Amino acid sequence: MEIYLDNSATTKCTDKVIEVVTKAMTEVYGNPSSLHNMGMNAENMIKKAKEQIAKTLRCSEKEIVFTSCGTESDNLAIKGAVYGNPRVGKHIITTAVEHAAVSSTMAHLEEQGYEVTYLPVDKNGLISLEDLKNAMRQDTVLVAIMMVNNEVGARMPIEEAGKLIKECNPKTLFFVDAIQGYSKYRINPSTAKIDLLSVSGHKIHAPKGVAFLYMKQGTKLATQLHGGGHQNNLRSGTENVPGIAALGQAAEDIYTDFEQKVENMYALREFFIEEVLKIDGVKINGLHTRDNAPHIISMSVPGVRSEVLLHSLEEKGIYVSAGSACSSNKPAISATLKAIGLPKDSLESTVRISMCEFTTKEELVSLLEALKQLLPMLLRYTRR
Amino acid sequence: MEIYLDNSATTKCTDKVIEVVTKAMTEVYGNPSSLHNMGMNAENMIKKAKEQIAKTLRCSEKEIVFTSCGTESDNLAIKGAVYGNPRVGKHIITTAVEHAAVSSTMAHLEEQGYEVTYLPVDKNGLISLEDLKNAMRQDTVLVAIMMVNNEVGARMPIEEAGKLIKECNPKTLFFVDAIQGYSKYRINPSTAKIDLLSVSGHKIHAPKGVAFLYMKQGTKLATQLHGGGHQNNLRSGTENVPGIAALGQAAEDIYTDFEQKVENMYALREFFIEEVLKIDGVKINGLHTRDNAPHIISMSVPGVRSEVLLHSLEEKGIYVSAGSACSSNKPAISATLKAIGLPKDSLESTVRISMCEFTTKEELVSLLEALKQLLPMLLRYTRR
Repeated sequence: MEIYLDNSATTKCTDKVIEVVTKAMTEVYGNPSSLHNMGMNAENMIKKAKEQIAKTLRCSEKEIVFTSCGTESDNLAIKGAVYGNPRVGKHIITTAVEHAAVSSTMAHLEEQGYEVTYLPVDKNGLISLEDLKNAMRQDTVLVAIMMVNNEVGARMPIEEAGKLIKECNPKTLFFVDAIQGYSKYRINPSTAKIDLLSVSGHKIHAPKGVAFLYMKQGTKLATQLHGGGHQNNLRSGTENVPGIAALGQAAEDIYTDFEQKVENMYALREFFIEEVLKIDGVKINGLHTRDNAPHIISMSVPGVRSEVLLHSLEEKGIYVSAGSACSSNKPAISATLKAIGLPKDSLESTVRISMCEFTTKEELVSLLEALKQLLPMLLRYTRR
Repeated sequence: MEIYLDNSATTKCTDKVIEVVTKAMTEVYGNPSSLHNMGMNAENMIKKAKEQIAKTLRCSEKEIVFTSCGTESDNLAIKGAVYGNPRVGKHIITTAVEHAAVSSTMAHLEEQGYEVTYLPVDKNGLISLEDLKNAMRQDTVLVAIMMVNNEVGARMPIEEAGKLIKECNPKTLFFVDAIQGYSKYRINPSTAKIDLLSVSGHKIHAPKGVAFLYMKQGTKLATQLHGGGHQNNLRSGTENVPGIAALGQAAEDIYTDFEQKVENMYALREFFIEEVLKIDGVKINGLHTRDNAPHIISMSVPGVRSEVLLHSLEEKGIYVSAGSACSSNKPAISATLKAIGLPKDSLESTVRISMCEFTTKEELVSLLEALKQLLPMLLRYTRR
């Protein structure tokens, strides 16, 4: 039995996605830049994927740029925006709880002479709009706010932030890392005043190695990969046709019967939180309500180290995460958990349970049973 | 009938490669950064691929960095080298016939204040070592020379160049774009004094969306993608496990029975050149001998526009290329063909025939028959 509850780290490809990948590796294997039919056919797969994705964001296909991963989308959005708009200024606003792909890029820009304001978050992981307003300046070239925090599932007020940013400074670009938000919320970048938005394929059942950046028409971005001028000269390199076609399919599929899927995840989340809190020593971080994202549950058991709980569950075939799992095996303390003010005994005792639309109640019941069995033992062991 | 002779643009995945990709999308779908088993299994697929590739280059697995495409490998090598070694100087040497992924990056660096010397080539597409020697300076931070030209198949003297560069200036880094050379030659970066070497997956029957950079241990490179610190902090972003595993498999496979494969391609090339030159109006560019790469044949038919010939062959199910096909549909005149001094009537009348190890004599015979039938007609039409 394998119970995979680490879907915010990565997801399993669906059969439909695998079919599309295989087709692009065998039948439609031409280079999309080739002038002959086989090139055209490959190009058409890319076009179809753009249309499939554009539909989910109610945007134009021209606003979709494909990249190789969420990290590349984030890097392109941030560096592209600040290097591409030098006259606006060198001030950037972001949050204290961004993914490393954003926070490390910010740290790099600070070394280059940019000034970065980090908005704090409350105990639920949320920024305040008041703080954002106070941080806005005439030389603010970019605001980067994640849609859903990857560790606690806090759902940032990006729609309100978008309006506020543009009211304060119409020249400021607004970038949303939606890697944990896309497929869990309907997103309309246009009404939310979002200029740039990143999404990763492998978080929504497409394969690893492909992602996209939504880029509002007319946004000026500095190219980060120079070469043959692919994708309107924004991102050179032969397009990953199998990955792109798979991403289009995954986007279409995940937004089919969407409300029902989200409702199911919320119901499961509520069920789990109610039941798990009956177990001695368990705490749930972030909001317990539907104001949080539907798929992420951050759970602390002070006294039981994350890795110990993770490996004990693993022995029972249950896979969860300690930390965000996107930070390349680093055992460092999570910046997000620190930022929401978790006490020291919780910082090293937090695991993340993350669902997808295929997660079942039976799987969560198995996890609950495992926890009921393991935790008293692990707590006793620790206290000795 | 489909006769695909555009293998320098891209290749078809083999069944073995597809099997590996599918396995990584279904069974081994964990995030390699995850601490549990499913993460370890994914990480092990990456390790295996590194070993498979390292074997083909007789290097250490630690010297392999995975990227998303040849363009990214080239960008990382060049920008990484010059930004990572600012004290050496701001002079770069390259050739007049590099792929756009290199030449566009050089153009970008020139805008940033770097000085770039472009080595000319002779009528066969080859640089002279004398020119290289004369261009070397104390502030030369990087020399970038492609191994095999993608349009005419000229095989550059990289081994001699490597020795010469290091004799002139041990601080100068030597980068070889081997995207058309790897799988056609045995390459030993260590004896050739190569510090950086780029290879793309989809040119060797792995899928699009994956590539690698060989990076000599100890080479200082500036990170181009900031994030979770993956791949020794050199290239952040969740690794494309299916693509990487496929690339490892493809590398191992293509270097199996290697000498025989290369011998076959040379024999086919010689057969084709001998036969095609019997047709009125046909010229072959570059060396006809085994000093040229085995898989590329550049053919001009003055008076017959490349696109016309390409589409006429396409109607017969034969796929060749006009230009290099890596330059995103741009109908611009090829810099390489200009650099080798082709007369004007040949510049717009050149097609590239590119083979892989699966190309058969029957396929070339069909191409020859098609040409014998088409060319007199097309030439008559043009002359009218």
